Amino acid sequence: MKIGLAKIAQLVGGKIEGDDRIIINGINSLDCAIPGEISFLIAPRYKKKLATTLASAIIIAEPAENYKGSQIIAANPELAYAKTAQIFAMPLTRFNGISPQLIIDEGCFIGKEVSIFPNVYLGKDVSIGDGTILFPGVYIGDRVKIGEKSVIHANVSILEDCIVGNNVIICPGSVIGSDGFGFVKDGHKSVRIPQIGTVQIDDDVEIGANNCVDRAALGKTWIKRGVKTDNLVHIAHNVVVGEDSILVAQVGVSGSVRIGNQVILGGQAGISDHIDIGDKAMIGSQSGIAKSVLPGNIVSGTPGMPHRLYLKTSSLIARLPQFFERLRTVEKKIAKLGQTDH
Amino acid sequence: MKIGLAKIAQLVGGKIEGDDRIIINGINSLDCAIPGEISFLIAPRYKKKLATTLASAIIIAEPAENYKGSQIIAANPELAYAKTAQIFAMPLTRFNGISPQLIIDEGCFIGKEVSIFPNVYLGKDVSIGDGTILFPGVYIGDRVKIGEKSVIHANVSILEDCIVGNNVIICPGSVIGSDGFGFVKDGHKSVRIPQIGTVQIDDDVEIGANNCVDRAALGKTWIKRGVKTDNLVHIAHNVVVGEDSILVAQVGVSGSVRIGNQVILGGQAGISDHIDIGDKAMIGSQSGIAKSVLPGNIVSGTPGMPHRLYLKTSSLIARLPQFFERLRTVEKKIAKLGQTDH
Amino acid sequence: MKIGLAKIAQLVGGKIEGDDRIIINGINSLDCAIPGEISFLIAPRYKKKLATTLASAIIIAEPAENYKGSQIIAANPELAYAKTAQIFAMPLTRFNGISPQLIIDEGCFIGKEVSIFPNVYLGKDVSIGDGTILFPGVYIGDRVKIGEKSVIHANVSILEDCIVGNNVIICPGSVIGSDGFGFVKDGHKSVRIPQIGTVQIDDDVEIGANNCVDRAALGKTWIKRGVKTDNLVHIAHNVVVGEDSILVAQVGVSGSVRIGNQVILGGQAGISDHIDIGDKAMIGSQSGIAKSVLPGNIVSGTPGMPHRLYLKTSSLIARLPQFFERLRTVEKKIAKLGQTDH
Repeated sequence: MKIGLAKIAQLVGGKIEGDDRIIINGINSLDCAIPGEISFLIAPRYKKKLATTLASAIIIAEPAENYKGSQIIAANPELAYAKTAQIFAMPLTRFNGISPQLIIDEGCFIGKEVSIFPNVYLGKDVSIGDGTILFPGVYIGDRVKIGEKSVIHANVSILEDCIVGNNVIICPGSVIGSDGFGFVKDGHKSVRIPQIGTVQIDDDVEIGANNCVDRAALGKTWIKRGVKTDNLVHIAHNVVVGEDSILVAQVGVSGSVRIGNQVILGGQAGISDHIDIGDKAMIGSQSGIAKSVLPGNIVSGTPGMPHRLYLKTSSLIARLPQFFERLRTVEKKIAKLGQTDH
Repeated sequence: MKIGLAKIAQLVGGKIEGDDRIIINGINSLDCAIPGEISFLIAPRYKKKLATTLASAIIIAEPAENYKGSQIIAANPELAYAKTAQIFAMPLTRFNGISPQLIIDEGCFIGKEVSIFPNVYLGKDVSIGDGTILFPGVYIGDRVKIGEKSVIHANVSILEDCIVGNNVIICPGSVIGSDGFGFVKDGHKSVRIPQIGTVQIDDDVEIGANNCVDRAALGKTWIKRGVKTDNLVHIAHNVVVGEDSILVAQVGVSGSVRIGNQVILGGQAGISDHIDIGDKAMIGSQSGIAKSVLPGNIVSGTPGMPHRLYLKTSSLIARLPQFFERLRTVEKKIAKLGQTDH
Repeated sequence: MKIGLAKIAQLVGGKIEGDDRIIINGINSLDCAIPGEISFLIAPRYKKKLATTLASAIIIAEPAENYKGSQIIAANPELAYAKTAQIFAMPLTRFNGISPQLIIDEGCFIGKEVSIFPNVYLGKDVSIGDGTILFPGVYIGDRVKIGEKSVIHANVSILEDCIVGNNVIICPGSVIGSDGFGFVKDGHKSVRIPQIGTVQIDDDVEIGANNCVDRAALGKTWIKRGVKTDNLVHIAHNVVVGEDSILVAQVGVSGSVRIGNQVILGGQAGISDHIDIGDKAMIGSQSGIAKSVLPGNIVSGTPGMPHRLYLKTSSLIARLPQFFERLRTVEKKIAKLGQTDH
């Protein structure tokens, strides 16, 4: 792939400082770039690397004096980097059409330009929209509907009656629509509560690898437009995740939690059941959140508390031994003062 | 599915207040139910919803005055709900018989009315009991024995020599019998300790999605009758989980832990190796338990402590900054009193 | 399998005390061993079991007086046990050659004595080294290279362009080379940063079950020689894990973290992005590490602190209620002393 710098600047909406006629054949970090490649400066702390990088051009927010090559000045250099990387990304592998090994049940609808690899299983009355790709080992249960231009990666299982929108990506090994974890005690024994709801995943959602999104007990578990989840995330039955929210790796969300729009849940955080996380709230990594969080709040720790307070208490915890020591000293002094008094 | 209310009452062992001749065609929550559907009241805090629900009938512990439809009075309304939901649940999809695509090795025994979907692999000398279902992508290693009426969902891997009982459900993506994590140092290098034991899963166990249950180093990892695990649970080698215990999502249990009967491990809890969790003990979410827990105890936190104490200390942690401030004030006052004294 | 004790002693480099002519037909724990089996004593706390075990021989560091059978004296009895267990371990099942059901794309190179089970998919230009085994349900993307004598277990997905070395084991359900979790905000929406790097896994690495190792944004995510990971581990994009490091179950490592050689990360620990964990450092279970850790340091807790300090603070946390009480008492006494003063 070779492309003129001027073309890149146009695609990312940037302005060139320096020679705009050079040809670019790859993208790389400042450290690893070789001549002919473009790089980028996002974090200011790497600025001194501009003096030594071999990159032929860089993407940057403001012209840098310590760099000698061509510069694309972009208001949002990270976004410009993402768009430039898209130019050099290999297109996703597609199976050319529908594998003759496809095992398909009755009543399926398969759209145009669908790519179905070998070793895929489709249940009864499944619907696959135009341009969607199903990789090997994918299991699609009865009556599942998948929209257009979605990508279901290898060894993903989508169980019966679930609905997946357009432009959705589900990474390998994830399980959509397994039964929610609902039991009622009958003496010692746990009796399963039938999970007769479904999962609905809206457009532009991306689900990481080895995720588990459980079907609802009744109604639906609902992942709304634009949600992104990292790897090994657990989403229990009847959870609603609002638009454009981000769930970092190994997050666990318990049953019936309602997560608002543009929420960020940090890695390994756990959310207790039946609570609300308001729009634009942020939850710190490893937090254990047992109470609802108001919109826009930043909460960390177990139990959850305002993030600033969390930072303060966190730093104090390491000082507890010293603190106990000081308390002991105070107690002794008081005892002494008490004696002096008498 | 249509069924008379009287029939439902009979199936769940309840008594009808109001018209017992109505016909029910579905079950739903109080909020979402439409006429013709039955609903239920389990949590008393939703009682006021009875005045507005459109459900034609409800299941409830005691007759409610603010509800106008028919009522099934049940001693355990949650259990009655579970049984009613069972009536309306779709039966699990079965492949009609054994897929001609089945790849099967020598010496396998396959019982009556077994359903084996396409893309399943069975190793040598495997035994599959009557009525069991194997979904697509299932891998069954050599000499594995699976009992009757069990369901092995899509893309599950059960490795050689493991034993699975009757009425067991294993959800998609789970791995049973992978090698335990045992290494011994030989200088810098880690030498694998061969894991020559197995996994035994007894009757009525349900394993969630993307679980990992490792085979024993020697002997067996043992999941006893009636255990239920949620998603993404890790159970290491030589662990024993007692009857009817419940492991919530993302729990991790280290090697050689012995968990008693009717234990509950909260979500994301971690249990250190070689300890005992006594019968009916409960471990709070996200706890880190490094010492054995006596039967019936409720333990939370990292390190684990009695749950009541945990609640107290948890609430105090947020007050540490104030606490340090008060200590400083006390120290100053004492210094002053000391001076006054002299 | 029957083998003379003298042969075992020779294989493990030990010296026999007692009868060296006996024949051994299995290995087991002290509790479970029956006559004819060999056992071992590693943890001194089990020493009294030597008096009652039925094992015909034991492996031990120093001759024990309370044991009547033959003893193999070994400098490192755990290593000797590992080597002895290897004698009795069943050899790994192999498919005899390459399954005729193999679905294979153009340009693949397959070495000698490769074993490929049914239901495997190989993409374009894949290379599989001599003696490697691919289990059912394995997905290998385009241009992936796998070395010699490696074992890729059932339902593993290795995505395009990843490189796997020699003698590597990847346990079932793991996902290698899924896209890193990188997004940039464009208004409310998250725009994917194309992940155009790869994953490189060096020789002698063992990856547990249901792991996720993400491909790099640029360059490579790199798992170096001899690394061992337990189950359900998350390794984000651009992470480097140094030689012989050990990652216990459910660890999460964020993007661009550099982990040194011989590091141990305890179960459920979380490592924040862009930090360094120095050679031979140890991180306690469930820790949340947000700052770089120097070589050789032992760090625990959230936030991370020296392990000894962590143990101290941990024990103090349970005493916080008592501590607050004592502070209150001190305050009252001072108030009284203040009054007395006037």
